[in-house]
Amino acid sequence: MLNFTYFNPVNIVFGKGQITSLANLISADDMILMTYGGGSIKKNGLYERVKKALKKHNMLEFGGIEPNPKFETLMKAVDIARTEKITFLLSVGGGSVLDGTKFIAAAIHFAKGNEWDILSKQAPIEKTVPIGSVITLPATGSEMNCGAVISRNSSAEKLVFMNPQVYPKFSILDPETTFSLPKKQTANGIVDAFVHVTEQYLTYPVNAPLQDRQAEAILLTLIEEGPKVLDNPEDYDVRANLMWCATQALNGNIACGVPQDWATHMIGHEVTALYGLYHAQTLAVILPAMMQHQRNRKSEKLVQYAECVWGITENDQNRKINSAIEKTIGFFNSLGVPTSFKDYGIGMDGLNSIGSRIESRGMLLGEHHDIGKKEITEILELCV
Amino acid sequence: MLNFTYFNPVNIVFGKGQITSLANLISADDMILMTYGGGSIKKNGLYERVKKALKKHNMLEFGGIEPNPKFETLMKAVDIARTEKITFLLSVGGGSVLDGTKFIAAAIHFAKGNEWDILSKQAPIEKTVPIGSVITLPATGSEMNCGAVISRNSSAEKLVFMNPQVYPKFSILDPETTFSLPKKQTANGIVDAFVHVTEQYLTYPVNAPLQDRQAEAILLTLIEEGPKVLDNPEDYDVRANLMWCATQALNGNIACGVPQDWATHMIGHEVTALYGLYHAQTLAVILPAMMQHQRNRKSEKLVQYAECVWGITENDQNRKINSAIEKTIGFFNSLGVPTSFKDYGIGMDGLNSIGSRIESRGMLLGEHHDIGKKEITEILELCV
Repeated sequence: MLNFTYFNPVNIVFGKGQITSLANLISADDMILMTYGGGSIKKNGLYERVKKALKKHNMLEFGGIEPNPKFETLMKAVDIARTEKITFLLSVGGGSVLDGTKFIAAAIHFAKGNEWDILSKQAPIEKTVPIGSVITLPATGSEMNCGAVISRNSSAEKLVFMNPQVYPKFSILDPETTFSLPKKQTANGIVDAFVHVTEQYLTYPVNAPLQDRQAEAILLTLIEEGPKVLDNPEDYDVRANLMWCATQALNGNIACGVPQDWATHMIGHEVTALYGLYHAQTLAVILPAMMQHQRNRKSEKLVQYAECVWGITENDQNRKINSAIEKTIGFFNSLGVPTSFKDYGIGMDGLNSIGSRIESRGMLLGEHHDIGKKEITEILELCV
Repeated sequence: MLNFTYFNPVNIVFGKGQITSLANLISADDMILMTYGGGSIKKNGLYERVKKALKKHNMLEFGGIEPNPKFETLMKAVDIARTEKITFLLSVGGGSVLDGTKFIAAAIHFAKGNEWDILSKQAPIEKTVPIGSVITLPATGSEMNCGAVISRNSSAEKLVFMNPQVYPKFSILDPETTFSLPKKQTANGIVDAFVHVTEQYLTYPVNAPLQDRQAEAILLTLIEEGPKVLDNPEDYDVRANLMWCATQALNGNIACGVPQDWATHMIGHEVTALYGLYHAQTLAVILPAMMQHQRNRKSEKLVQYAECVWGITENDQNRKINSAIEKTIGFFNSLGVPTSFKDYGIGMDGLNSIGSRIESRGMLLGEHHDIGKKEITEILELCV
């Protein structure tokens, strides 16, 4: 096992009816800015429930945060927060709204340079505004971590920052808020959580059997519950199980003491920045290609994945890995998520630039930090 | 899945050499009281390493906290802390030292009545002194929870209190500090962690497959790694895996959204209070008896336990449960921990009073809150 530190102070409030606890979770003295996305919370009644729970609080609102939240949009919220002396940010929506809100929280008091430096230069943050969240889409794990992924239109970039100061003070997870999600978003969320786990699991063994089993626990549960939700979107237990899987997939617990990869994510971010695909759509294409390209370096964990997640116990190692990759593709496809960029009309012409884009940021990807421009192009060639 | 809240702000610092980070984890302005037990940390060099790491800090010390830490002993530390205006408590030792330190932290500023009320009346705590810990015995999970179990000689009582204010600010877990543990303590720690998991797992199903798999992950790892450590006490990875299992067994994660039992613990506390047995010794005897007595009410989870933890897939449900109980007894015995009170020369004469003792506290035990005096006696009859 590798040395590690683990710190996660988010107060998780999980279950049906928990929205009503909002009034006790935020001080009556706070000046709240409620942030949200494209308005689905107005259609499903959540907007009204939040307003009702906080009717005695002072609250302004900022809607219109888009999927892959944009720096340009978020800076409008930062301006409002500065003018109105906002002391608490309440994110009501999915991971994009919450990621955007984390950026707003970090940017409000940022005074040394352009706020984009928080992403592009990992500029230090001195003071943040506290955040609470009501999460409506099980996917990113943002509700229980301190990371955020932000895009900027002007430079077609999608970058990550992580800072313990932007852990939400609390996150409310009410599975009933996810009943009305479109099938596509539900499926994307399952893929997202699945690939969060593989990024922390499909590397190389370090004799950490508990963490391996905890990672497999999430994968097995996603595989078991995922198909159920497409048929029964209002099954409370299935929604609850998927929601808790997504949180556990990226709250740092399964990363304790093990190597991490994240190459699939880093390449996926570039594809989204260039083509606007949903995050999970990029992951579903790149992960199988990554497994194929890295099958030798990842062989031990790929065999373990084949055996413990997919129950493939016959045949030699090579065939086990082949079967595990096929099973992964089959699972994503069964959720309606394509596994080739061809399905989006994307070929190598545009993808060829991605290796250089990542190289220009000085990044070498993967758990061995050795996936560079050449390898990225090879991986992308397996994606089309 | 049941509704739940989960909050755990402990900063875990895990791995070899992490003791040196102490200097950065405690403010130089603090007046520290270092607490420890019977002096094993002086024999294995840890005492000197802690002193060296904190050589620029102001630190007093209080040794002699015993297993099943005693109110009478701890109040001496409280007196010192009050006199010396201690602002930080550093626990260096196992779960008993840390539990005792949590009580000291809660008692220092306690002014409304006798400090024992914190245990006996669950009296509210207004202000605590912050705690850090260096944990040296994987067992209780105290390093990542806010509970403590304290005994009082004068009344032969052993009681629990839990309060979010006594979460350690940090816990350092260096597996190397456990190399020199006596076999008996190592084995007791494994049993303790094992039974912590069963208390949160062997109840009744609520459709929470992720939590079930996470619980099974800990049990399977304890079963796998436990025997190894007895043969190779200085195998770093085995020690690390057991240490992380013990923490994960009682940090609240596997309790999320599921029923909890704790009857085995409550009865075990009484046996320790009356006879002075180690905590784990009582658990190893009572758990199999509890499984036997509650086999109908717990049947679904006992069958799942048989199948998923012990790989018992043949035979009918009844035989599966029998085999699972036998396997549990065999595992404890293989660690050298007896599974009958007869092995300690204890018969029903003294144990007969336990039902009344628990009844007198107004407690009904188990996940259904229906195990009273009569059932407790029946369970204890299966223990001798």
